[in-house]
Amino acid sequence: MDISIRMKAISPSLTLSITAKAKALKEEGVSIISFGAGEPDFNTPKYIIDAAKKVMESGTIKYTPSSGMLRLRQKIADKFLQEQGLSYKANQIIVSNGAKQSIFNTVAALINEGDEVIILAPYWLTYPEIITVCGGKPICIKGEEKNRFKVTPQQIAQACTSKTKMLILNSPVNPTGAVYTKEEIIAIAKILEDKNIYILSDEIYSKLIYNGQEHFSIACVNEKIKHKTIVVNGVSKTYAMTGWRIGWLAANEQIAKAIDSFQSHSTSNACTISQYAALAALEADNSSEVQQMIATFNSRRIFMLDKLAKIKDIQAIPADGAFYVMVNVAKVYGKKFNGVVLKNSIDFANALLDAGVAVIPAIAFGADECIRLSYAVSKEDIEEGLNRIEKFINMLQ
Amino acid sequence: MDISIRMKAISPSLTLSITAKAKALKEEGVSIISFGAGEPDFNTPKYIIDAAKKVMESGTIKYTPSSGMLRLRQKIADKFLQEQGLSYKANQIIVSNGAKQSIFNTVAALINEGDEVIILAPYWLTYPEIITVCGGKPICIKGEEKNRFKVTPQQIAQACTSKTKMLILNSPVNPTGAVYTKEEIIAIAKILEDKNIYILSDEIYSKLIYNGQEHFSIACVNEKIKHKTIVVNGVSKTYAMTGWRIGWLAANEQIAKAIDSFQSHSTSNACTISQYAALAALEADNSSEVQQMIATFNSRRIFMLDKLAKIKDIQAIPADGAFYVMVNVAKVYGKKFNGVVLKNSIDFANALLDAGVAVIPAIAFGADECIRLSYAVSKEDIEEGLNRIEKFINMLQ
Repeated sequence: MDISIRMKAISPSLTLSITAKAKALKEEGVSIISFGAGEPDFNTPKYIIDAAKKVMESGTIKYTPSSGMLRLRQKIADKFLQEQGLSYKANQIIVSNGAKQSIFNTVAALINEGDEVIILAPYWLTYPEIITVCGGKPICIKGEEKNRFKVTPQQIAQACTSKTKMLILNSPVNPTGAVYTKEEIIAIAKILEDKNIYILSDEIYSKLIYNGQEHFSIACVNEKIKHKTIVVNGVSKTYAMTGWRIGWLAANEQIAKAIDSFQSHSTSNACTISQYAALAALEADNSSEVQQMIATFNSRRIFMLDKLAKIKDIQAIPADGAFYVMVNVAKVYGKKFNGVVLKNSIDFANALLDAGVAVIPAIAFGADECIRLSYAVSKEDIEEGLNRIEKFINMLQ
Repeated sequence: MDISIRMKAISPSLTLSITAKAKALKEEGVSIISFGAGEPDFNTPKYIIDAAKKVMESGTIKYTPSSGMLRLRQKIADKFLQEQGLSYKANQIIVSNGAKQSIFNTVAALINEGDEVIILAPYWLTYPEIITVCGGKPICIKGEEKNRFKVTPQQIAQACTSKTKMLILNSPVNPTGAVYTKEEIIAIAKILEDKNIYILSDEIYSKLIYNGQEHFSIACVNEKIKHKTIVVNGVSKTYAMTGWRIGWLAANEQIAKAIDSFQSHSTSNACTISQYAALAALEADNSSEVQQMIATFNSRRIFMLDKLAKIKDIQAIPADGAFYVMVNVAKVYGKKFNGVVLKNSIDFANALLDAGVAVIPAIAFGADECIRLSYAVSKEDIEEGLNRIEKFINMLQ
C-alpha cells in the first residue's frame, strides 16, 4: 500500500528546514530578522472587515454557487473591463480558495500526461509542483541577470516544441519584482499567437507596482491571444487579505465551464464571508488604505535597494513590483563562515541564519546564485536585518 | 486545443436542468416548495459568529500552515479521542476547504490510473466524479431496499478484485439517511482487514443521528483497520456552517504528510477566519443551539415519514440520520402526468416541479427508482410540499 504516483511527484520543500530552524531559534529567544514573508505585514483595511462583519451578523452563511456568488463574479468582470479593457461575462470568472487554486485548476483543466509547460526562472516554486502533479513536464527558461532575469521572445520561441501546451507568465514577477513592459509582452504574444499554446497569466501582484512602471496583461494584446489566455488574480496581496483566501481566474467559456465543474467536485465554493469581503474590497478599490500600503511598500523598496547597494560583494537586482528583491550572492560562494564553506544559496541562507537573519535561498526558484528578501517587513527590521547581512558578509573569509 | 482528459471525465450534472428550471419558475413568481436543500436551513449559532468577529477585529487575518492552525488540528485530534476513542497526533489532521476537499485530497493521494474504488449506492454524487477525475474506476454496489439499501459484507467481499484500492463508506448515508450499526461496521471491517484496501470513512453527518441510533466509525474497530482508514468530517452540517468551508481528515502519518504537501501546492490553507470559527464551534460542542437544531431535524423527520406513509403508491425508506428521506416512486412509473409518461426519476421530478415541488431525482445517486427529499426545510413547507405531492400522485393516470 502506497501513495499515488501523482503525490510522489511532489518535491519536498527545499526551504522547509531553514524555516523550521528559524522558528526554533525564535522560540529559543534568539533575535532573528525574517525577510521570508510572502504576504503583506499590514492588517486587512477596516472597511473590508466591517463589510464582512455585516454579512456575519445576518447569520446566513450558506453555500454559494461553486464558482462564486454571481454578484462577485460580475464585479470582477466589471473591473477587468474598467481597468484593463478586458471583456468577460460573469460565467467566464471562477472564484477560488486563493489564486493558487485558480492556477491549480487551470493546469488541471488543460495539461495531460507528458505535456510541456514553459515556466520562466526565477519562478514561483509552486508552478513546477502543480505541473508535475498534473502529469506535465516543466520546461524552465531563464533570462539574463542584466535584464532582471526577464526572458526574451527568442528564448520562448526556442523552448517551444510540439509538446508545449502552456506558458506560465507572471508579471510583476515573484521572486524578482521585475515587471515586463507592454512592448516585451506584445513581443512575447507575437511568438505565441499562431501556436497551439495556452497562456496562464499570473497577475496577482498587478497592483503592487512602483517607479512609474505599468502593468500590462498579455490578454490585452488581441482577441486571439485573449481567447487562449487564462488570467489569474485575487485580493490577497493588494488588500492584505491573504488569510481570507479569495482568488479568481478569467478564461474562455469552454475552459471556465470545465473548471467550474471540476471545482464543484473538488472543493465547492470559497468561504462565503470572504466572498462578501472581496466584493467590498473591489467596490472601494482606490481606498486611501490601499494607496497607503502601496506607498509604504515603495518607500521600503527604495530604502532596501539603497542599503543593499552599499554592501560589498553582493548585487541586488533592481525591482519595480511585488514586495521582493533578489540579491546575487554568488561572489561569496567558496568563502567560509565559522569554518564552513558556503557553496550555494542553501549554505548561504543557513549560515546567515546563525547571524540572525532569515532569507529564502533562491534555489527554490531556480536561481541558486541568489537569495530572496521580502520587504513586507517594517523599515526598522529592514535596517537592522541589512546591517546584520553587511556584518555577515564582512566576516566571511 | 482542448481541455484535459481528466476534465472530460466529469459528467454533466444530472440535476442541473431541474435546479435551473425550479429557479426560473421561482423567479417568475410561481410557488415552489423545494426539498432539494443539502444544507441546514438554520443560521450559524451566535457564539460561533461572535468568536469569528472577535478574530476579525484584530485585523490580522494571515496565512496559516496549509494544513490548518495547530490549535485547530490539536482540538480536532482531542475530539477524536474524546468522542470516538481514536488517537491521532495533530500532524495526522489536515484541515481543508470543506469535507469535499478532504475527500478529493484522499482519492488524489491514493488512487492511480485504473485503480478500482468501491462505492455503495445510493451514493453521494460527487464520489464517482472525484474517482474518475483521479483516473480511478468507481465500482458501484447496492444493498436491498428492505435493508434501507445498506450493503452486506458479502456484497463487499464479492466486489473486491486485485485492482480494488479503496472503499468509500458513508454513515449516516447521504442520500438515504440510513445508519450502519456497530455490528454491520465490524462485519465490513472483518472483510477488509487482511486486504490491501484503503477505507475512506465519510462521517460528515455523524452528529445528525436520531431514533436512538449511534454513530460508529470503522476506524474504531482495531488498529490495523484504523491505519488504513481515512476519516473525514467537518463543521458544515452539525453547526450549520456550510458557507464557512471547513472540513478535515485524519489519516496515518504517511498519507497525511502527502496530502499536506499536495494541499500546500493546490489551495493552501482554508479561510483563516473560518478556522477560528470552527475552533469555537468545537470548543462549545454540546451547545444548546446545536442540540436544538438536532431536535428540530428529528421532529421534522418523524413528521415527514408519518405523512409520506399516508400517500398511496409511494414508499419512504426509513431514515435515522442526516436530513434526507428517500422515497421509492417506481410504482407510478408508466403513469401519465399532463399526457406525459413518467418513465424514471428525472421524468417524475420534472413533472412534480410543474405541480409546485422540487425534489432530487435519485438517478443522480444511482437509484433511479427513488427521489430524495430533504427536511432541512420548515415544517410548514414540509406539510405544504407533501400535500402537493399527494395531490400530484392522485392526479396521475
